[in-house]
Amino acid sequence: MSIGAARQHSGRIQHRGLRAKVVSAAEAAAHICPGDNVGMSGFTGAGHPKVVPQALAAMISERRGRGDDFRIGVWTGASTAPELDGALAQADGIELRLPYQSDPISRAKINAGTMDYLDVHLSHVAQMAWEGFFGKLDVALVEVAGITEGGDLIPSTSVGNNKTWIDLADKVILEVNTQQPLELDGMHDIYYGTALPPGRRPLMIVRPEDRIGVPHFTCPPEKVVAIVETEVPDRHTVFKPIDEGSMAIASHLIDFLEREVTSGRMPAGLLPLQSGVGNIANAVLAGLGQSSYRGLTAYTEVLQDGMLDLLESGALRFASATAFSLSPTGAARFNNDIGYFRSRVLLRSQEISNHPEVIRRLGVIATNGMIEADIYGNVNSTHVMGSAIQNGIGGSGDFARNAYISSFVTPSTAKNGALSCIVPMVSHVDHTEHDVDVVITEQGLADLRGLAPRKRAQRIINNCAHPHYRPMLQDYFDRSVSGAWGRQTPHLLSEALSWHTRYLETGSMRSSAWRV
Amino acid sequence: MSIGAARQHSGRIQHRGLRAKVVSAAEAAAHICPGDNVGMSGFTGAGHPKVVPQALAAMISERRGRGDDFRIGVWTGASTAPELDGALAQADGIELRLPYQSDPISRAKINAGTMDYLDVHLSHVAQMAWEGFFGKLDVALVEVAGITEGGDLIPSTSVGNNKTWIDLADKVILEVNTQQPLELDGMHDIYYGTALPPGRRPLMIVRPEDRIGVPHFTCPPEKVVAIVETEVPDRHTVFKPIDEGSMAIASHLIDFLEREVTSGRMPAGLLPLQSGVGNIANAVLAGLGQSSYRGLTAYTEVLQDGMLDLLESGALRFASATAFSLSPTGAARFNNDIGYFRSRVLLRSQEISNHPEVIRRLGVIATNGMIEADIYGNVNSTHVMGSAIQNGIGGSGDFARNAYISSFVTPSTAKNGALSCIVPMVSHVDHTEHDVDVVITEQGLADLRGLAPRKRAQRIINNCAHPHYRPMLQDYFDRSVSGAWGRQTPHLLSEALSWHTRYLETGSMRSSAWRV
Repeated sequence: MSIGAARQHSGRIQHRGLRAKVVSAAEAAAHICPGDNVGMSGFTGAGHPKVVPQALAAMISERRGRGDDFRIGVWTGASTAPELDGALAQADGIELRLPYQSDPISRAKINAGTMDYLDVHLSHVAQMAWEGFFGKLDVALVEVAGITEGGDLIPSTSVGNNKTWIDLADKVILEVNTQQPLELDGMHDIYYGTALPPGRRPLMIVRPEDRIGVPHFTCPPEKVVAIVETEVPDRHTVFKPIDEGSMAIASHLIDFLEREVTSGRMPAGLLPLQSGVGNIANAVLAGLGQSSYRGLTAYTEVLQDGMLDLLESGALRFASATAFSLSPTGAARFNNDIGYFRSRVLLRSQEISNHPEVIRRLGVIATNGMIEADIYGNVNSTHVMGSAIQNGIGGSGDFARNAYISSFVTPSTAKNGALSCIVPMVSHVDHTEHDVDVVITEQGLADLRGLAPRKRAQRIINNCAHPHYRPMLQDYFDRSVSGAWGRQTPHLLSEALSWHTRYLETGSMRSSAWRV
Repeated sequence: MSIGAARQHSGRIQHRGLRAKVVSAAEAAAHICPGDNVGMSGFTGAGHPKVVPQALAAMISERRGRGDDFRIGVWTGASTAPELDGALAQADGIELRLPYQSDPISRAKINAGTMDYLDVHLSHVAQMAWEGFFGKLDVALVEVAGITEGGDLIPSTSVGNNKTWIDLADKVILEVNTQQPLELDGMHDIYYGTALPPGRRPLMIVRPEDRIGVPHFTCPPEKVVAIVETEVPDRHTVFKPIDEGSMAIASHLIDFLEREVTSGRMPAGLLPLQSGVGNIANAVLAGLGQSSYRGLTAYTEVLQDGMLDLLESGALRFASATAFSLSPTGAARFNNDIGYFRSRVLLRSQEISNHPEVIRRLGVIATNGMIEADIYGNVNSTHVMGSAIQNGIGGSGDFARNAYISSFVTPSTAKNGALSCIVPMVSHVDHTEHDVDVVITEQGLADLRGLAPRKRAQRIINNCAHPHYRPMLQDYFDRSVSGAWGRQTPHLLSEALSWHTRYLETGSMRSSAWRV
């Protein structure tokens, strides 16, 4: 037996040859070289590698201290955690980051211009990596829950792009995390039928629970250069209690869905739900739980606490996602009752959870957060004041464009009222007027479907704007209608972005002319 | 026999009961009432009704002259012709127009604010009509090439949304156009498997030539309230000779595709082509004809003259579209050699020709025109100076978002150089940075794939901007990088739209500071 195999191990590595590859985090990190592109697991703080990135950050710091330019490309599923993005950014070790991140240290470096960031539709990442223009993927660094006797990998609490990273990389480093319950085994559906065109075939999913793949990743054992055993929990974010504004937004959406059912435009059991993460999403889910719905389904990116409640109550029959994003108590509940949940939850690769084909076919009801919307219903999901990235577009575009109903939610104001989240013109567009059906704030809901632009504007101003900003918006709109160069989508271009410049200059979007 | 059946008829109406419904255009138009929504055939000037809309316009003018408010909703496939959009707009007969139009009289009314216009992704129209929020569809007015003995309808030179209009409307008015060759019969593939969710199933198309439907429309004869016989050609637009700028753009694109093949990112026979209509598109097709390609395919909206050349030479093996858009000589060539073309061309409903599921699966190479792009690669396809509609988004979004490679083309300047088509910030966004892979002008090609925003900007400025505007763009970009609020996508918001306001004020985007 090799030296490696003599190390203590957890029993999660059933494959004898791979057991011999267990090393320390530092030894594993040493396989990563300056300039490498590393495909890491991790999606919304679930299933990311927990210890090798920190060892890598330490190695990078040490090498940079000696004058080496040691930076790497970091590709993931989506956001990770401080011990990955934070540690590597702190060490100035990331040259290029993709396709989504939410770490504050990374954000500061990106907005300072010292880290490149590719903000990509999450469904596009795998095909782009296969296509090759991101460059070569040198290393895959993936957390798994275990390794079977045959050498197959049992996925962890997120799937993300792991299948693609393992397939593409020359070298694979695994973290086997004993903190993840082994009962995860069987909850995943890893589809091995993707291809670059012209080899693509229909995805035969017609209900969220349909399986088209296998439960494990396949990985040639000889590609595995190192395995590290860990026992570290996911980044479980404590949710704030649901506030009044979020409850109001949720209630507007739920009333709207009920009207859709009454009008015959929506089946009584709704259509598969997609929702972003956070306070508003959890309020929507809580509201659905208090309604009389039964047998709902979800086809979404992320399974959050609110979905556990709905699964337990029976309101939600089944949920398909690519990752968990649970609070500490949510994670404990899930782990305690995993026998119940595992037959009602399925995790897929993000190229399938977010696939336009499936989202369009199922007719998903999409609800996503945003930074701001303009009076015509264009949505900014990514850039503060048009220039500074907040997080990224994530999967919102995958869902919004192809959803049966695409809704975007935000409080009507931010920064204690200094910012209106309804503006004359958004400072960055991630979702165009063509892709936004419904805008919701705590003030109300604007159903924009079937409305020409001027009618969209009046409805958004009336229903969604905060009363403090409504007269200013109405004034801008009225003067645009009379003074614009054309009246399909009237704008006064010299003023369209003036709310943002006023905020940058004065700290508030409110004009002194309108302060009473 | 009824009186109607006693009228002269062409033999194109094989169904005896329907033969009895032949009437004059004015009699047919009389079935349309004020406030009706009318679903009309027609896509890029092909297959639209030729005589009833003019009779309707005359009736509307007469009734409006008497003080009646006679206006209707006009829904089509895409653009039609002066005898439809022009005549009805001239009569002030259109209250709401959707989903695309290019008629100058309509455009003027829309931009004057007297006609509502819904600018919708062409793949979304049918599902939106079924969903019902456009309101009820009262009448379908559809041109066909003939009616079978069993009462089925032989489609004409465009399919568009005709299947949906016929299914949804209470009353159907048919124009049987004997100018359309009967050999069209069999060239269409009408899919009757669409449904609203949760009833949707996979579309089993894996090659452009795959058929999943039937050759005819089904229509209960009792719904047909009138039939008019016509003998009027489609709107065949004479193409201008291909100019130098278009040839340069085409050559940049073809060189790029060759590099993609060489690099192994593209099969040697390319992937299915989509291209917009017009001079640049025909230049691209002509260029492909002069290359060594054989066995190419097209999965596109519209079949234009350039594709006939490629089909004749064998460079193009098969083309799937929803409509023709031919010049007078192109139409004559097609009709003379229809026996050759009919086995190589297939027309589908636009919800299938533009379906995200199929476009993504096939890996279409999309090439679409635009009004302007900004330095970060956001594209404006629809609005001049942010407010005035030009035509509409059409199918460009369906293809761009889901294409394997999404390219946008424009001359680098317009209005004799007074407008730069590369600007600091576009005045309207139809395609976001996330959806634009390649920007091409006669100056060059910017491959934006895998580039973070600042690198996208530098490449677009270097490769695509006109030399007269390049220093001004570089100056804006440099000052943005140093002065913006964030450096992910640096903008100076107080200047971002200043090029457009300068054009509105001075007639040119060029700043006096930069005039030499």
